[in-house]
Amino acid sequence: MQTVTGFSKFSKQEKIDYLVNEFFASSSHTTDLLKSFWHPNQDHQKIFDEFSENTLTNFYSPYGVVPNFLLNGKLFCLPMVIEESSVVAACARTAKFWLERGGFSAEVIDTEKVGQVHFSWAGNKEKLFSYFTEIKNELLDEIKPAMTRMEKRGGGILSLELRDKTDLEENYYQLYCTFNTCDAMGANFINSVLEILGEKIKQKVDRAFSEDNLTVIMCILSNYTPNCRVKASVFCPIEKLSDKSLEMSAEQFAFKFAQAVKISKIDVHRAVTHNKGIFNGIDAIVLATGNDFRAIEACGHAFAARDGTYKGLSDISLQNGNFSFSLELPLAMGTVGGLTSLHPLAKFSLDMLGQPEAKELMQVTAAIGLAQNFAALRSLVTSGIQKGHMKMHLMNILNHLGANQFEREKAHEYLQDKIISFNAVREFVGGLRNYQ
Amino acid sequence: MQTVTGFSKFSKQEKIDYLVNEFFASSSHTTDLLKSFWHPNQDHQKIFDEFSENTLTNFYSPYGVVPNFLLNGKLFCLPMVIEESSVVAACARTAKFWLERGGFSAEVIDTEKVGQVHFSWAGNKEKLFSYFTEIKNELLDEIKPAMTRMEKRGGGILSLELRDKTDLEENYYQLYCTFNTCDAMGANFINSVLEILGEKIKQKVDRAFSEDNLTVIMCILSNYTPNCRVKASVFCPIEKLSDKSLEMSAEQFAFKFAQAVKISKIDVHRAVTHNKGIFNGIDAIVLATGNDFRAIEACGHAFAARDGTYKGLSDISLQNGNFSFSLELPLAMGTVGGLTSLHPLAKFSLDMLGQPEAKELMQVTAAIGLAQNFAALRSLVTSGIQKGHMKMHLMNILNHLGANQFEREKAHEYLQDKIISFNAVREFVGGLRNYQ
Repeated sequence: MQTVTGFSKFSKQEKIDYLVNEFFASSSHTTDLLKSFWHPNQDHQKIFDEFSENTLTNFYSPYGVVPNFLLNGKLFCLPMVIEESSVVAACARTAKFWLERGGFSAEVIDTEKVGQVHFSWAGNKEKLFSYFTEIKNELLDEIKPAMTRMEKRGGGILSLELRDKTDLEENYYQLYCTFNTCDAMGANFINSVLEILGEKIKQKVDRAFSEDNLTVIMCILSNYTPNCRVKASVFCPIEKLSDKSLEMSAEQFAFKFAQAVKISKIDVHRAVTHNKGIFNGIDAIVLATGNDFRAIEACGHAFAARDGTYKGLSDISLQNGNFSFSLELPLAMGTVGGLTSLHPLAKFSLDMLGQPEAKELMQVTAAIGLAQNFAALRSLVTSGIQKGHMKMHLMNILNHLGANQFEREKAHEYLQDKIISFNAVREFVGGLRNYQ
Repeated sequence: MQTVTGFSKFSKQEKIDYLVNEFFASSSHTTDLLKSFWHPNQDHQKIFDEFSENTLTNFYSPYGVVPNFLLNGKLFCLPMVIEESSVVAACARTAKFWLERGGFSAEVIDTEKVGQVHFSWAGNKEKLFSYFTEIKNELLDEIKPAMTRMEKRGGGILSLELRDKTDLEENYYQLYCTFNTCDAMGANFINSVLEILGEKIKQKVDRAFSEDNLTVIMCILSNYTPNCRVKASVFCPIEKLSDKSLEMSAEQFAFKFAQAVKISKIDVHRAVTHNKGIFNGIDAIVLATGNDFRAIEACGHAFAARDGTYKGLSDISLQNGNFSFSLELPLAMGTVGGLTSLHPLAKFSLDMLGQPEAKELMQVTAAIGLAQNFAALRSLVTSGIQKGHMKMHLMNILNHLGANQFEREKAHEYLQDKIISFNAVREFVGGLRNYQ
């Protein structure tokens, strides 16, 4: 294989032709496949093409919904984008379970965003700090023009401080800034402000201390926003947990459930999977609303490790006969800016949620995370995770094989005590077909 | 708003009708919008509908590619599914940069997967351990039938041990198991085996020690797989880093770059964003190949916190005049099973990658993560992150507004020293239109 030159300048069709020639023996079937995923409206398709670069087509993920989700006394229909089977079903079952027990509650603790100018300076530390105090207001003046729009919406910079990091790395300092970005995730705003601050502090310090040049290493927002945090919870008397599907008493269920939560606090192998389940729910709405799941994930997992041990994010208490289950985590989300108004289905999601402010979206998202965690733990401590999951997986494979009703019934019967894999199902169905 | 009953039993059309009535004032435009994202082939669409539950339509994410990616002496064209602008472009630039400097290297360190049976038992600890030694082979015999297919492929269970966790939680023990799942991610296989082990150990212990009943709390794989690990790296003499786009000498660039990596090791606010950038690349190929990005994220970030402080995942060394940059992290990925053969574009991705084994996919994925980290740090320590990013973002917004060539040029000119937001661009373009 040879390298290709000028690929990014190729038209979409030329890119596809190149790939189909190079990797698919010029199969027109492959070209047709890629094109079959294009949006029928060319203008719509152009928008998707230009979200990113070197785009060929659209990757589909299933867009599903969970109705009857009661949060803070309000009914929501939740949008979820996720390819993993049974996540939406689990969320829907949990929504129903808690609908009958008062629903979910959530509150936003704070919405502070963070940005940093990282720089190095070899001069005298005390002089730098004293000079920073002198010029702090000038620096704030320099970023005023960039603030206008955000301040009109009620946001802006909340704090600007100089941090001494020289004990960790020689000559290393930070401008550590906090922001209120209102309903925006705020990445572009924060990064733009930080780049101005970086440029200006260098200018000023270099002018004031001609013997030592300040080097701006980088200016960048932080995705670690422990003070952009929300808490979701459910609560009911333990006896009210009774449900025939539990196949045990409400007390036994509550006790086993609490054990499972405790294990996520003391065992990293369990903690990771516990939190993975929480993010199954969170990422599904993050994607559906045009937010950035990589930012949410990175922040949430670092938060889970904040006290030196990586732990499960949810908390349980069984006191005075009550079951109280909650999830507190940082969620820096936006309902304006970014893809929220550019992606037609992100816009649909936000409309279906009632055009929430960012704070309400944080609440809804934390509640989905909690619901998903409840669903996973409930399955794990009762019937086990495989029962529901394998049923879905088998259906997917049978669909893929175009199985008829007879084949479906036989496959369900034969495979009920076996491990379901693609090949096992294909062989079994193939066997039926040869026999007939 | 009233709750809806029997929603999951509604047909797809009935679900859409319900939502459009309830949230969109029965707008036929909304119904058309949702339908416009369906695949034109009904059978294909059915597959997507049944990946998950309560599905209405497909969420589009742009599917892009990066050609000319040289890894272990072989040229790849990488599939990337990501909605964030400039991630694919950054990866392509980095691919080109390293193509001219020997390319990427990667090696798999190990592929061990993990599963646990969590249980409690109030009896005598020494007796339990001694009994476990007695019955260990019987337990392994019990899971034999479930092993057949995996063993045929060269995999199976690697170890089975009893772990005493009673110092952390009263009466709490684990069966801790490790597996080789070959080219599968292996979740279904592992969970099925664990559920058998859980059932059997309870049966046996309860029979042997009638005075104390064993309670299986849960049986579940762990997404924390620190020994399913891969390392990717790039290497060249520092002087070879020269590139006019750096706007500084190769030595200065290498030094600033190394400072940026060091900062990710000592500052959690930077570490989170540093790793977020790595996962921009990793998740893009994880999605494109039908793997589970929540599992990869949870494991990777917990691994980043493994020594008690959350740190950047990549490492740098500038010794003997050489630039050596690497990324080592756990990546539990599959090239068979799950969605890999069910999602037509996941299959396309794997075909384009040359139908790799899981190990090679781990290598490619780690290399993309490293490439993305290199691209981000390179931008940050040279021109800053906003320059390329805002250009892309502005183009997206102009596309959305259907801007013509004149409006595009004027907008670029006017906004070059301003913060680009959707409203700012809309107002500016609106102003142009009113004026004309």
